[in-house]
Amino acid sequence: MDKLKEYYQKIAKYSSASALLYWDMQTYMPSAAGEYRAEVLSEIGSYAFIMSVSDELGNLLKSATPNSEIDEAIVRVGLKEYEKYKKVPAEVFEEMMRVSAICEQLWQKAKKERNFEIVEPYLEKVVELNKEMAKYLGYDNDPYDALLDRFEPGMTAEELNRIFTPLKEFTIKVLKEIEKVGKVEDPFEREIDPARQEKFNRWLLTHLKYDSTKCRLDVSAHPFTNPIGINDVRITTRYVPNDPKNSIFSTIHEFGHAQYALSIPDEFYGLPIGSSASYGFDESQSRFWENVLGRSLPFWTGIYEKFIEVFPEMANYSVEDIWRGVNIVRRSYIRTEADEVTYTLHIILRYELEHALINDELSVKDIPTAWNELFSKYFGLKIDDISLGCLQDPHWYGGSFGYFPTYLLGNLYAAQIYDAMKKEIDFDTLVVNGEFDKVRGWLTEKIYSKGRMYEPKELIKKVTNSDFDSKYFIDYITKKYSRVYSSNL
Amino acid sequence: MDKLKEYYQKIAKYSSASALLYWDMQTYMPSAAGEYRAEVLSEIGSYAFIMSVSDELGNLLKSATPNSEIDEAIVRVGLKEYEKYKKVPAEVFEEMMRVSAICEQLWQKAKKERNFEIVEPYLEKVVELNKEMAKYLGYDNDPYDALLDRFEPGMTAEELNRIFTPLKEFTIKVLKEIEKVGKVEDPFEREIDPARQEKFNRWLLTHLKYDSTKCRLDVSAHPFTNPIGINDVRITTRYVPNDPKNSIFSTIHEFGHAQYALSIPDEFYGLPIGSSASYGFDESQSRFWENVLGRSLPFWTGIYEKFIEVFPEMANYSVEDIWRGVNIVRRSYIRTEADEVTYTLHIILRYELEHALINDELSVKDIPTAWNELFSKYFGLKIDDISLGCLQDPHWYGGSFGYFPTYLLGNLYAAQIYDAMKKEIDFDTLVVNGEFDKVRGWLTEKIYSKGRMYEPKELIKKVTNSDFDSKYFIDYITKKYSRVYSSNL
Repeated sequence: MDKLKEYYQKIAKYSSASALLYWDMQTYMPSAAGEYRAEVLSEIGSYAFIMSVSDELGNLLKSATPNSEIDEAIVRVGLKEYEKYKKVPAEVFEEMMRVSAICEQLWQKAKKERNFEIVEPYLEKVVELNKEMAKYLGYDNDPYDALLDRFEPGMTAEELNRIFTPLKEFTIKVLKEIEKVGKVEDPFEREIDPARQEKFNRWLLTHLKYDSTKCRLDVSAHPFTNPIGINDVRITTRYVPNDPKNSIFSTIHEFGHAQYALSIPDEFYGLPIGSSASYGFDESQSRFWENVLGRSLPFWTGIYEKFIEVFPEMANYSVEDIWRGVNIVRRSYIRTEADEVTYTLHIILRYELEHALINDELSVKDIPTAWNELFSKYFGLKIDDISLGCLQDPHWYGGSFGYFPTYLLGNLYAAQIYDAMKKEIDFDTLVVNGEFDKVRGWLTEKIYSKGRMYEPKELIKKVTNSDFDSKYFIDYITKKYSRVYSSNL
Repeated sequence: MDKLKEYYQKIAKYSSASALLYWDMQTYMPSAAGEYRAEVLSEIGSYAFIMSVSDELGNLLKSATPNSEIDEAIVRVGLKEYEKYKKVPAEVFEEMMRVSAICEQLWQKAKKERNFEIVEPYLEKVVELNKEMAKYLGYDNDPYDALLDRFEPGMTAEELNRIFTPLKEFTIKVLKEIEKVGKVEDPFEREIDPARQEKFNRWLLTHLKYDSTKCRLDVSAHPFTNPIGINDVRITTRYVPNDPKNSIFSTIHEFGHAQYALSIPDEFYGLPIGSSASYGFDESQSRFWENVLGRSLPFWTGIYEKFIEVFPEMANYSVEDIWRGVNIVRRSYIRTEADEVTYTLHIILRYELEHALINDELSVKDIPTAWNELFSKYFGLKIDDISLGCLQDPHWYGGSFGYFPTYLLGNLYAAQIYDAMKKEIDFDTLVVNGEFDKVRGWLTEKIYSKGRMYEPKELIKKVTNSDFDSKYFIDYITKKYSRVYSSNL
């Protein structure tokens, strides 16, 4: 067991270096340094990957004798990962890394020039490589399951279909109901200089009791969270002058990811159990802090005074006005700017298309048309600018298929966790009073301290004493938005 | 040859990651992350070291067939390094890394508590390990030569003695002459808030025509330059409120190091010839930009207007007053704060002590007494606070013996280079007019573009058409300070 742990901890040091190289690339790296940085990242990433599928690791895993529940989890999760990736030939992985790196770069050009053809041939290769990888990884009925399992262990397309189909109907219905009520005024529709936005965001992190000895906030084009090492998690945000909500909720979102990463026990670090339970579970925490907590009335009640102090131009709005302002529901083109309600449709659209692609029911060249048709069906909006359509997100072009559903699963987990939490702690009072350490304490005990010992469905049941169910989310949305829109949804 | 280059370029990628991990540790890393960061640095550093002494590299070096002067230099420099370090058992290196890491940490405590005994036993081990390493590295008469050669290839203690002894006499004499003239007023003896200092330093970099797409300036406790990768060199400075000269000359000093690193041809990157010619040559460039250029009257004539704009409180001083202010000579305890004249004595004192330590003529426990005696002899000052004496610098405690002389060699090279440069370009006019690209162009052609193809003595001869000689420095100091102090020195 000790040798096994040492081996994993060794790999982790290379992953830590890679994480810093990536963080720096997105924040402080001089602009001309990108080409060489990509080479360094590729070299160190390959080396870490080679170790993670080495015979040496395989032998250590097979000969380890676990003496505790934790050790058993290390071997179980480790073996599953090892055997899964061992089956994929190194050339396929390398080709995937190579092709998707090029494809993601071309995507930036394609998006800028609003021209899908630029990226089409490479996206075709990426889809083919994903299909090939699915074959190696193995699956029962649906090749998509092999890819989905990489991000959300134990989840299948069949289950997604079962959950997503009624959720789609529900969302379309709620959206129509909300639109009947009419528009809510948005106090945030104004320009606010980045310096004041930054001041507020930094205060916000202090208010949320973030630990500045282990975490830092910087600026990047696309906000992200990057766990660099033990006691070192970096988050970023962005300050858009005419969209002050953007930085606030990006900061809280990434803060949520960081809470998770910082609260996994140090002794799990680098081991197979030393990360969040899944991509969906990780997202459940960013969304919990951003939406369930950060867009709640108790939260805005607690920060209203400071908010008005920093942004006196909003003093004529009540706390309820501001709260409504951060919860406006509207049909929009861009996923990352979508509200909690319509976000569901953005994800389901992507899931349906990527599932069809992997199952040969859709070809790459037909993506733009298929996207626009589905978008029109779900949102009732026509897409004239492809950068607002299928070229908006990097995921597919960067090689990730099976990733998008985890965003929506995150919302569903978050609602179910919130339901269980409220039964045990006085959420509203704690949040009004800024006692976020108690909220975090509950989450740490139930979720963060477990790392990746359990698969998502097992963990959600342990945390909430219920099977995973989308009813909690439906209930949460119905209640919350009935109040936001003063209407019986 | 191609395989050899590839192998070196692979090692360089791990060194690049290490460099970034180090830079981040000194600038932005959250404070609690230090312990794990040290582990990551050690793992990746060891891996790069193992590759650099591997049989694979040895075979590639021995079987390479160079087809050009550059290839020949790669193999020659590579083989010298390889054979040198191959002779040292890995355990000795690892022990040196381990012991000096602990010793350097204890040094910080010892310095803070002004207690040499805290660090003494570990410094003894460090000295013993250096002696052991010298044996493995090999030498003719003096074990110190083996250590010195690591930093300054081809230099020997015998030659240092020959150069340093008259230089010491000269410096003591000049210092006395200067003190006869009396004190010069220091316009910089005032508090200036870091924000204005930063503004001026950033302007200064622009004025010096630094390339912000390849370089960046940050803040750290001790200023340093760190080449991270191709097109990526980071420099740092520090803003001390009551010492505004500190940031200005730290910035120009590190800018000088960065110019060198950024101007070595990209195709040399990672290869044995892909760095500066030696530690002394590297320092010659930081000192050239900082002192020869940055403390010259033409330079201050060129920046005077901007300087007064940012620091209007100094407007009653003439450009000559300011220039004299940045060239004040005074006896002082701290090497890093010393002027161009007394700096010589600070280095010679350290060289004499470390040479005696390595040759068993001085024992570690007697360092404080020996330091204080020599300091009194050279500076005529008594040391009551050991943190201003032998505990001021980290070098010995961090394991570096044979390093200090390179600082003084840097000053000597710089003066000799300056003498040659003035014969070919109109230095004063270019500097007044801010045409630093022409100064850099000359240095790039003669020095930077050669990387480490030549040993220092060979390179200085190529650059200046003369053998290495300290007379240029003596001449430079005599002329400059005669003018600063309006006296015939």
